[in-house]
Amino acid sequence: MIPREPEELMQLASSGSRTALARLITYVESSGPNHAQTAALAYQVPSPYVVGLTGAPGAGKSTLTDRVITTALARGSFNENYAFDQIGVLCIDPSSPFSGGAILGDRIRMQDHATNEHVFIRSMATRGHLGGLSLAVPDALRVLGAANFTLALVETVGVGQMEVDIASSADTTIVVTNPGWGDSMQASKAGLLEVADIFVINKADRPGVRETKRDLEQMLDLGVHQWRPLIVETVASTGTGTDELWNAIVEHRNYLDDGHFEEHRRTRMRRELDKVLSAVLHSKVRDLARGQAYETQVDALLAGVTDPYRAAEALLSES
Amino acid sequence: MIPREPEELMQLASSGSRTALARLITYVESSGPNHAQTAALAYQVPSPYVVGLTGAPGAGKSTLTDRVITTALARGSFNENYAFDQIGVLCIDPSSPFSGGAILGDRIRMQDHATNEHVFIRSMATRGHLGGLSLAVPDALRVLGAANFTLALVETVGVGQMEVDIASSADTTIVVTNPGWGDSMQASKAGLLEVADIFVINKADRPGVRETKRDLEQMLDLGVHQWRPLIVETVASTGTGTDELWNAIVEHRNYLDDGHFEEHRRTRMRRELDKVLSAVLHSKVRDLARGQAYETQVDALLAGVTDPYRAAEALLSES
Repeated sequence: MIPREPEELMQLASSGSRTALARLITYVESSGPNHAQTAALAYQVPSPYVVGLTGAPGAGKSTLTDRVITTALARGSFNENYAFDQIGVLCIDPSSPFSGGAILGDRIRMQDHATNEHVFIRSMATRGHLGGLSLAVPDALRVLGAANFTLALVETVGVGQMEVDIASSADTTIVVTNPGWGDSMQASKAGLLEVADIFVINKADRPGVRETKRDLEQMLDLGVHQWRPLIVETVASTGTGTDELWNAIVEHRNYLDDGHFEEHRRTRMRRELDKVLSAVLHSKVRDLARGQAYETQVDALLAGVTDPYRAAEALLSES
Repeated sequence: MIPREPEELMQLASSGSRTALARLITYVESSGPNHAQTAALAYQVPSPYVVGLTGAPGAGKSTLTDRVITTALARGSFNENYAFDQIGVLCIDPSSPFSGGAILGDRIRMQDHATNEHVFIRSMATRGHLGGLSLAVPDALRVLGAANFTLALVETVGVGQMEVDIASSADTTIVVTNPGWGDSMQASKAGLLEVADIFVINKADRPGVRETKRDLEQMLDLGVHQWRPLIVETVASTGTGTDELWNAIVEHRNYLDDGHFEEHRRTRMRRELDKVLSAVLHSKVRDLARGQAYETQVDALLAGVTDPYRAAEALLSES
């Protein structure tokens, strides 16, 4: 029998129980005391090194993730001080903002690794309010850390704001594109230029690689970078470019190690704290929206005797 | 000389000054006392009837908006009780979440109407924080109302969360698709099924119309609707289907008129108030994030002696 108590589960997970690990991740997907206890335990242990992959559906992220897993396990370390013999993989498909349920559909992925004892793969979904994933993913990464994972991959589908938000909370963020992928505007608008540490042009056996690379370089030329994002060409289906991609990951990691890591982790921590603060404040909005004072303000708005800014001020000063 | 004071500007705008109207909309794009004063005045006047159009780039929204403007002006009213002799059009291109500036690019649109005195066209951009547009658009609509516009169109590019958010705050929301447009998942994930009052299959002279219509119908069959969204086929470039689209808009408006309008407007008002409440609370997060107490909590997080939930609680109880 698997226990239900976070502390016991954490002990089991750190001894290698995948069932216990899975249950702890389920806890951080939902809200409540189990989430709070799990977080309290997990944040005592440092985060794994996190590699994030994001890109539009069909860009070939799953196949590429597959290749990265194989290469990472074969290499076994970033350097003499940072080894890994297992990898945690979180697959994220941000759900509809309205229906509140993730559509993972028939996502059959990374089948070879699913039975590999060195790989833990988990699809994550929100079990609650909007934005739940952007809180749950960092927590799940810490749970992986507490279960002795020192390397984690987060694969996120899509290039919307939430996907970018999740992917960019990684240590190394990889944006997967394809030849002829969108126009320059698209990448710029989605904020990908600001978050990518590495751009991958996957399916690089197709026409248009040179143009896509040139477009990316031109956009990067417009910015000022402490770290100028690397551009790597891959054909994930055949494995071409996988080694180059891994080397790029190591290169970015070495860059961070070279005096930037503390600042980077502090930035990541601030971002997580801001997200939790926002979530807590949002739940206050929801509470406010249930009260009589709120309905009184809505009535006043409909009658044209106030505006939303004065109404909000009135509500917050009362609460 | 055009004045700068919102009250004077509002008087001029309601007498027909487009310059005054434009300046008031600039006020609601930014934050500060001019925004607050403009909102206070604008919310005294009922909202125009708002038709929202959204869809992916390239779906043909601008051309379709063009056709709707022409048809609406030719008809001149929804019924004997609700006429319009001018139309306000807001063109929204939500900006990158990271760069904070809208990329309107070389968007040259609706050229025929730009010089028509019965049409006021305005592109809107955020001048501030993320989410600014979702506050500024409803305010700009109320400014249009105060300037005697009884009909407004909001055209939004994209099908991300913010676009859907903006489009769905209309009275009648039109989602523009194309034959072969995405798969069923795409519409479902973007939350479009939940917000669309009318689906347009534009470019209906291309292959795949029947399949797209069938897909939409099947998805709609899965839901429970008070108002089952209409599906209209158009070829905006030739004008085919424009009358049918207008009739669909009128049909949805009549549906609202038939006992649903008050509830609909209350829902819209609640949503606006919630957005303002969120924005105010977010600015509190930003203020919190500037303090010493915040850095102390980040230090504690990095040291592994707290977790983001306890840290947030500590900060909020102190503030």
